[in-house]
Amino acid sequence: MNKVVLITGSTSGIGLGIAEAFAKAGYNIMFHGLEADGDTIAKSVGDKYNVKVSFSNANLLVADEVEELIEQTIKVFGGLHVLINNAGIQYVAPIEDFPNNKYENIIAINMNAAFYASKKAWSFMKYQKFGRIINVSSVHGLRASEFKTAYVTAKHGVIGMTKVLALEGAPHNITCNAICPGYVKTPLVEGQIKDQAKAHHMSEEEVVEKVMLKKQAVKQFVSLETIADMALLLAKDTSSTITGTSFALDGGWSAQ
Amino acid sequence: MNKVVLITGSTSGIGLGIAEAFAKAGYNIMFHGLEADGDTIAKSVGDKYNVKVSFSNANLLVADEVEELIEQTIKVFGGLHVLINNAGIQYVAPIEDFPNNKYENIIAINMNAAFYASKKAWSFMKYQKFGRIINVSSVHGLRASEFKTAYVTAKHGVIGMTKVLALEGAPHNITCNAICPGYVKTPLVEGQIKDQAKAHHMSEEEVVEKVMLKKQAVKQFVSLETIADMALLLAKDTSSTITGTSFALDGGWSAQ
Amino acid sequence: MNKVVLITGSTSGIGLGIAEAFAKAGYNIMFHGLEADGDTIAKSVGDKYNVKVSFSNANLLVADEVEELIEQTIKVFGGLHVLINNAGIQYVAPIEDFPNNKYENIIAINMNAAFYASKKAWSFMKYQKFGRIINVSSVHGLRASEFKTAYVTAKHGVIGMTKVLALEGAPHNITCNAICPGYVKTPLVEGQIKDQAKAHHMSEEEVVEKVMLKKQAVKQFVSLETIADMALLLAKDTSSTITGTSFALDGGWSAQ
Amino acid sequence: MNKVVLITGSTSGIGLGIAEAFAKAGYNIMFHGLEADGDTIAKSVGDKYNVKVSFSNANLLVADEVEELIEQTIKVFGGLHVLINNAGIQYVAPIEDFPNNKYENIIAINMNAAFYASKKAWSFMKYQKFGRIINVSSVHGLRASEFKTAYVTAKHGVIGMTKVLALEGAPHNITCNAICPGYVKTPLVEGQIKDQAKAHHMSEEEVVEKVMLKKQAVKQFVSLETIADMALLLAKDTSSTITGTSFALDGGWSAQ
Repeated sequence: MNKVVLITGSTSGIGLGIAEAFAKAGYNIMFHGLEADGDTIAKSVGDKYNVKVSFSNANLLVADEVEELIEQTIKVFGGLHVLINNAGIQYVAPIEDFPNNKYENIIAINMNAAFYASKKAWSFMKYQKFGRIINVSSVHGLRASEFKTAYVTAKHGVIGMTKVLALEGAPHNITCNAICPGYVKTPLVEGQIKDQAKAHHMSEEEVVEKVMLKKQAVKQFVSLETIADMALLLAKDTSSTITGTSFALDGGWSAQ
Repeated sequence: MNKVVLITGSTSGIGLGIAEAFAKAGYNIMFHGLEADGDTIAKSVGDKYNVKVSFSNANLLVADEVEELIEQTIKVFGGLHVLINNAGIQYVAPIEDFPNNKYENIIAINMNAAFYASKKAWSFMKYQKFGRIINVSSVHGLRASEFKTAYVTAKHGVIGMTKVLALEGAPHNITCNAICPGYVKTPLVEGQIKDQAKAHHMSEEEVVEKVMLKKQAVKQFVSLETIADMALLLAKDTSSTITGTSFALDGGWSAQ
Repeated sequence: MNKVVLITGSTSGIGLGIAEAFAKAGYNIMFHGLEADGDTIAKSVGDKYNVKVSFSNANLLVADEVEELIEQTIKVFGGLHVLINNAGIQYVAPIEDFPNNKYENIIAINMNAAFYASKKAWSFMKYQKFGRIINVSSVHGLRASEFKTAYVTAKHGVIGMTKVLALEGAPHNITCNAICPGYVKTPLVEGQIKDQAKAHHMSEEEVVEKVMLKKQAVKQFVSLETIADMALLLAKDTSSTITGTSFALDGGWSAQ
Repeated sequence: MNKVVLITGSTSGIGLGIAEAFAKAGYNIMFHGLEADGDTIAKSVGDKYNVKVSFSNANLLVADEVEELIEQTIKVFGGLHVLINNAGIQYVAPIEDFPNNKYENIIAINMNAAFYASKKAWSFMKYQKFGRIINVSSVHGLRASEFKTAYVTAKHGVIGMTKVLALEGAPHNITCNAICPGYVKTPLVEGQIKDQAKAHHMSEEEVVEKVMLKKQAVKQFVSLETIADMALLLAKDTSSTITGTSFALDGGWSAQ
């Protein structure tokens, strides 16, 4: 039987990149996202790689919907081997202007949803004697940038959660790790490059090198393939001793 | 004029220890806590050290009450120089049994309240060209223990928040640091020692050394004085370049 | 053309495990080690996986011999794509009894040799516009244990070196990362288990769980396969943005 | 009796700043340094603060001389309470041009000397049931900069050494911590500012803000007073549970 992976926020960006790589590797996939055509996206990946897929647009702000998403996955696929808590939102503002509800939503989606999902998946993974929980944190789970109070707080929180789950999962062959990417070229970021180039009267190349990737020593975006490679490695049966670690894939950002 | 410090959760335990040390050093103090006799505790410290004090029992679960606490401090004392986000709660349970509302309350008190308080204090500290924000995190802001998902998540989150505020405060002489104590002998902990000694049929000394301080190389509790010394150092005018750091005072816990 | 990897200390233990995995993946391999039959070990791997191999018994205590080892590799294979600084020695003693020459040799082999090798390989890797330097550090590059002053110092030093080389390599497609394993079951460790079982009147299973793996949450040794998987991932062409990171593969050791 | 502190590299810069603060606090001081008038510098501090001083120009490259320095201190003052391993040298070059002997000397002075000194002081501190070892590492013990392979390696190594000594010292009331300053305005640095201003056709202010303090969020040098405050806190009798920690005093450098 193919293994089953649930990836939150997988109908675009990093999540979709990871999903494609897991599909290619033969995993059945529970997609999740807010894209209106999420169902179609899921099906096209399933058809391309000949794996079973399903789709949910659960609202991760609501604990019940997160828990339902886990139950639905197990019911549809008959298993849940890899849980990738990837969905995330961002908001940028100076601390004094940071709206409370923006802060609260970022904490809810980027951090609390990983708690609800992992908690709900736990007893099944214990029973199954196998679980791989992968939290897509960020270099911002290790380092800060200005104006990102909520995001950095949530991403650091996820790193802490990762370590606890690693300790609790150790006797049950449940591992939990975090992946901490630097800047990744997603459709969202591509739009930002164009906008900033206009705003700063710079070329798009300059925006990338001098603004976006200022803190990365390697002046390239982290590729989807790189993140997927790491996630696939963590998901392996034989990776049972890799747990509680935060894997920075950040072009040297956190080294300096 | 004496400088003014607001310390959340200061009517007992670590917060009270810090408050006494700041009072002794001549700070006026805004006490906060849920003790019924908080007012009396505050007054007795004020009388002993001849400093001005006030008291609030604001509910830190409610953003409005946190913001009101800041406003009240500035109004009563005419200033707010040092904000010590210290209040915290704990709950211990395996991940699969961890009640959602316990998780949410720990995130709210131990992490979100520091956001609301710092945000509200920010414009005044900017205007004042001086601010010292000290977050009492924990060694659990750096390392995990089993069964403490919420606490470890929140305390890690606070470390992230600390770093962002440090960066944003840099141009305004607002510093933000975290103190990360190991086990401290508070009344709460003293009770736990007695209970565990009975439960495990061990002497109280054994409970301390083998259970409580298992992860600390130094088999003593971290003293209130040690934490207060660090906080006083961070609060100094001349400590303007100390910012964004997490200070582990943990008997060697995080070194191993 | 097959890529070329030089692995110091590769005629036994972790190094040999990595070598087998790289051979299987089609790399030509420069073996290095002090085993008398190193040449035979190298050949047997080469034959098994049908890759080109060579062998050196360079003394890593001597800078000149380290540099010569790099030159020889490039000369024999016509390239050097991946340099794995893996050779290491250990000595355990309380600080006050730690012999100076034991300290100095550990620093020389475990740390300085990586400097000489990386330095010598650098200009060729720049010219080649490709380099992957992988330092096999240890969880002791991140955390300490008693009585291992020299080893922990050297392994932390290597982490620092890794970060600098990552920054300097960024414009040249040279990455540098560290792998930080917990306890790995090598022939050396197997012998220690037997000895300790006798000494402590414990079963071998107890020695592993209570003594050796005391600090790992997962009570298994880290496998050679796990370390090799990570090294192979880091060596990939597409891993150009993974640099300056320390990858803990430690069964949850550093999480707690 | 006054407590005794030995500070290596204390006839100028950071070491002298620390020495003045310890003298002011009533410590007798063993000075050490290579300044030709070291003896005079030591005496002037002793006279100013009315404490006993002595001076040595031991060559820290030589293990025997380091050990002799410890013996001499104990003999002259009848005790050794605080050992501050502060002496350090720097050299800046791309990895491929980094002279081996420069690398080796930096490792020897900035790292190995701390090993020889701590080892030699250990049995006396154990006997005395009191010891405070303070290693002046650097933000470069935590993060890297280009062209500083040797310095970053040595300073990371010292962080590792610090953690081991903390664990071994725990039963003996010997603590060991590291202080990790960002840029400090020493006479050496002042010279560099002038030189760089000329070289870059910038004002000295611009050099400080845009070149020297580029990575610090707070655009001020870390003051000698700040470092001395931290060292004095660590040296206290009551700081017995502060051990194995690296204290970043770096203007927010390592937070980002």
